[in-house]
Amino acid sequence: MEGLEALTFDVFGTLVDWRHSIAAEALRFLGEEKGYDRDWNAFALVWRGYYQPAMERVRAGSRDFVKLDVLHRENLLKVLDDFSIDTLTESEVDHLNHAWHRLDPWPDVVAGMTRLRARYPLAALSNGNVALIMNMARRAGLSWEAILGGDVARAYKPMPAAYVSAADMMGLEPSSLALVAAHNDDLKAAASVGFKTIFVVRRTEYADVGQITDQEAWDGADLAAENLEDLADQLNCPQAATLRPDTGRDNTEA
Amino acid sequence: MEGLEALTFDVFGTLVDWRHSIAAEALRFLGEEKGYDRDWNAFALVWRGYYQPAMERVRAGSRDFVKLDVLHRENLLKVLDDFSIDTLTESEVDHLNHAWHRLDPWPDVVAGMTRLRARYPLAALSNGNVALIMNMARRAGLSWEAILGGDVARAYKPMPAAYVSAADMMGLEPSSLALVAAHNDDLKAAASVGFKTIFVVRRTEYADVGQITDQEAWDGADLAAENLEDLADQLNCPQAATLRPDTGRDNTEA
Repeated sequence: MEGLEALTFDVFGTLVDWRHSIAAEALRFLGEEKGYDRDWNAFALVWRGYYQPAMERVRAGSRDFVKLDVLHRENLLKVLDDFSIDTLTESEVDHLNHAWHRLDPWPDVVAGMTRLRARYPLAALSNGNVALIMNMARRAGLSWEAILGGDVARAYKPMPAAYVSAADMMGLEPSSLALVAAHNDDLKAAASVGFKTIFVVRRTEYADVGQITDQEAWDGADLAAENLEDLADQLNCPQAATLRPDTGRDNTEA
Repeated sequence: MEGLEALTFDVFGTLVDWRHSIAAEALRFLGEEKGYDRDWNAFALVWRGYYQPAMERVRAGSRDFVKLDVLHRENLLKVLDDFSIDTLTESEVDHLNHAWHRLDPWPDVVAGMTRLRARYPLAALSNGNVALIMNMARRAGLSWEAILGGDVARAYKPMPAAYVSAADMMGLEPSSLALVAAHNDDLKAAASVGFKTIFVVRRTEYADVGQITDQEAWDGADLAAENLEDLADQLNCPQAATLRPDTGRDNTEA
């Protein structure tokens, strides 16, 4: 990866397991607390299913930019209706909507990001808004140098403006940045404006078995990794054991 | 500080000692390397002197928003002219301009922020652009949950939009945020849109002796502190010794 100076990351699916996290929150809150008996995995998938169409209106220009928290909430009202759940107060809807701020990372993510960060600055390049990514990071123990995309760019990936804005704000040429993502469409859009691309496979993002999309990297990807620890190995990042616990920096540096 | 949920920080002067840092870079690069014999403390002050007037054109609407790196570079060309320094290449000007990305923190800052961060999310609310604040943080060992203000808000403090944008992006009411700053004007502007305000005194920001501005907190400040360690004490943040070295979280938590 010659000339690579910083890493940017897709978040939903790439770093966090939104499906199991949302299903677990729905089970706890709507199932155990409110007494509804529903398929909570389906609930998570249907909620996520409204995600792209909602952003598409913004991308197409038929709606002004609104942050993802707003789209998630509008979509949540539809899902609650789809699943005949009609007893929530406004503040309960708000609480459930913020389940997207409380997603759990895949098991390799915290350790992998710690190693990657010892060598590269890391920025979130997500469609999630700052509050969402910030709250998620603090809860999950992720650590960002900068949160870009979303309401910072006021553009939704794969709009070129989302990637271009991130490079501009980091003060770097797109060619010195890589996007790390589990979705080839995201990588292709980043590549089209000059980013390097790194595919990380997440075989169970949409289903525990039988997921057919994004099982391998598109031909044009610069690198493909099994997970972030594998990526840290491939990018010759220090092992966790050599990182100084106080600063997270490489202990083997001068 | 009832209802306080997160801290935002002014950066130049409050967290980093721009005057000594810029003077030291100018001495090294223009003095020792290029052979110019000038008053480098004056050089730093004059460069900084062009800062407010340059932003004022943006605030007044007579110029579209441009990021601080751009204003700093335009101002640098003026200072170089003022000091009759005329032998730099374009890339040398760029290098010197990025001295603002390499400012050193005041001695209490890294330890103080580490303690504050164990209890509160921390966001930069600076006129500096993302790349500047991000590069400074990585070099100096600061750690931000989010970088706001500057080119994220596309507004320069003390424009109300800069503070309002930060609160909106953090998903918090202004009243649950405090601005920490060494400048009472900044605090007053933040208070005018509902922020809590915390004054931290920096008696030598502009001069080693005899500085008369901002030697004490304005009457309306919610809190005043001698430095960030003192602030961490006043906000009952954990002592550094109780913080877990791996996560920076409070070891005394469950």
